[in-house]
Amino acid sequence: MSNIAVFGLGSMGYGIAQSVLLAGHSTWGFDVVAAQVERFKSIGGQSGTAIGVVPNLDIAVIVVLNAEQTEDVLFGDAGIVRSMKAGATVISCATVPPDFARDMAARAVAHGIHYLDAPISGGSVKAAQGALSVMASGTTEAFSGARPALEAMAETVFELGDTPGTGSAMKSVNQLLAGVHIATMAEAMTFGISQGVTPEQFVDVISKCAGTSWMLENRAPHIVAGDYTPHSAVNIWLKDLGIVQDIAGKAGCATPITETALAQFNEAAEAGLGREDDAAVVKVYAKKAGISLPGDD
Amino acid sequence: MSNIAVFGLGSMGYGIAQSVLLAGHSTWGFDVVAAQVERFKSIGGQSGTAIGVVPNLDIAVIVVLNAEQTEDVLFGDAGIVRSMKAGATVISCATVPPDFARDMAARAVAHGIHYLDAPISGGSVKAAQGALSVMASGTTEAFSGARPALEAMAETVFELGDTPGTGSAMKSVNQLLAGVHIATMAEAMTFGISQGVTPEQFVDVISKCAGTSWMLENRAPHIVAGDYTPHSAVNIWLKDLGIVQDIAGKAGCATPITETALAQFNEAAEAGLGREDDAAVVKVYAKKAGISLPGDD
Repeated sequence: MSNIAVFGLGSMGYGIAQSVLLAGHSTWGFDVVAAQVERFKSIGGQSGTAIGVVPNLDIAVIVVLNAEQTEDVLFGDAGIVRSMKAGATVISCATVPPDFARDMAARAVAHGIHYLDAPISGGSVKAAQGALSVMASGTTEAFSGARPALEAMAETVFELGDTPGTGSAMKSVNQLLAGVHIATMAEAMTFGISQGVTPEQFVDVISKCAGTSWMLENRAPHIVAGDYTPHSAVNIWLKDLGIVQDIAGKAGCATPITETALAQFNEAAEAGLGREDDAAVVKVYAKKAGISLPGDD
Repeated sequence: MSNIAVFGLGSMGYGIAQSVLLAGHSTWGFDVVAAQVERFKSIGGQSGTAIGVVPNLDIAVIVVLNAEQTEDVLFGDAGIVRSMKAGATVISCATVPPDFARDMAARAVAHGIHYLDAPISGGSVKAAQGALSVMASGTTEAFSGARPALEAMAETVFELGDTPGTGSAMKSVNQLLAGVHIATMAEAMTFGISQGVTPEQFVDVISKCAGTSWMLENRAPHIVAGDYTPHSAVNIWLKDLGIVQDIAGKAGCATPITETALAQFNEAAEAGLGREDDAAVVKVYAKKAGISLPGDD
């Protein structure tokens, strides 16, 4: 059994910490939100005010929101890399640009720490089940060091080679597709309603036809139910499709469809829907077309 | 057993005619391409120079390319509706605007002919297996009259109510999604290659993640193989996404993502790729980004 600390106890990080704990590891959880820390302690997790409380930490799993927070956890004022023992492993799970992942890995290695570039996919339910997909790249030593945590948190680990950054690149590819598919589902749903196709018919038929996508099958039922409880919020796509646009632009890659989908999420955020479920992008389309959606008054 | 005629023996129509014939019906096949007619006769199908050769036709299945050809088969110089007996049924399978389907249905009914608005989905392989999906709407009599042919050609019949046009509307919704998903797959594949993700890794990983779509799983392997044999050609999307744009515009529905995807297919067609497999839209992206694809010299 290993000593494992999870940094960031949001919906994904809490699920990961819980899965690692249930797998029998000595597990610490850290978050700026005290209530999440208390919740984790109530199920048997450990915590403290600083990384220094963890003796002989083997693995640090970083499950924060973005690149800035990742860098702060690793190398900020209370940065953990300085106090980790040589040969320990960092698993970095946030969606970040590939160049950033390569930079973090190089700086960690300079401290004798292995670094696995390991973005995650699957949502909070799969996180809590220890059934995430991990898109990982890094040295053999990083994979080897990370294994006890990966086995507890993931159903599938895609091993994408020994270069940090490829995991993050694959995650951005996935986010490009997932984000576009959500906005396209909203566009198609609204178009269908304008032509006499009901939201229920849309889900029943399209999910069995060539027009389906994983995101359509997952998100379109939210619109049918008129339920915009945020499993994944509109604002996530401003960040993730923004990353795609940024790194694609630097590589000279045109991403016009991504740009158009991002514009729809931006309109949704500007309309005050940023914290609603990402399926709420449909409200932008429906309003413009003067179309009613399930749950409208 | 019924007397059934199939008009249009292209890849979809031939498969339908074959399925109807194998189900034991007296089956006629008509096409302007003599070789397709001869091919159909060689497996036991019947044909002739005009609809008049068919005695007591029960069902006419129209599987031509577009609205213009559909109208010509039904009401043109050699239009079949005039020579069909009252109470016979037309099954109209081309992707057409909903308004056009309603117009055709009204005109057929004026001749005492039942009309099923019944666009198909599934591709030529499923057509040959009698395993298509049909998105159908029409009167109870139209469904009833069409049943012998539907049972032979379709695995799934989505019954979308008694108003002609809803079937065509659902088909356009499906085409919107399918067309956008193909172009988005191409955008994501090229972006991934620019970031060090190989085409093989793209297919292996994304097909198991939230970014997947039916079209991605079906078409991305064509790019990995460098094989652009047209199962469905780029030109199809100029037509089908054009229909979407047209009817969405009339309904006051914004479809910006569709418009952007259509622009990519237009660029592909302008680059001479119109008759290649629709996955060839990836070549537009790759050329702009200076990226090599499998099969490039």
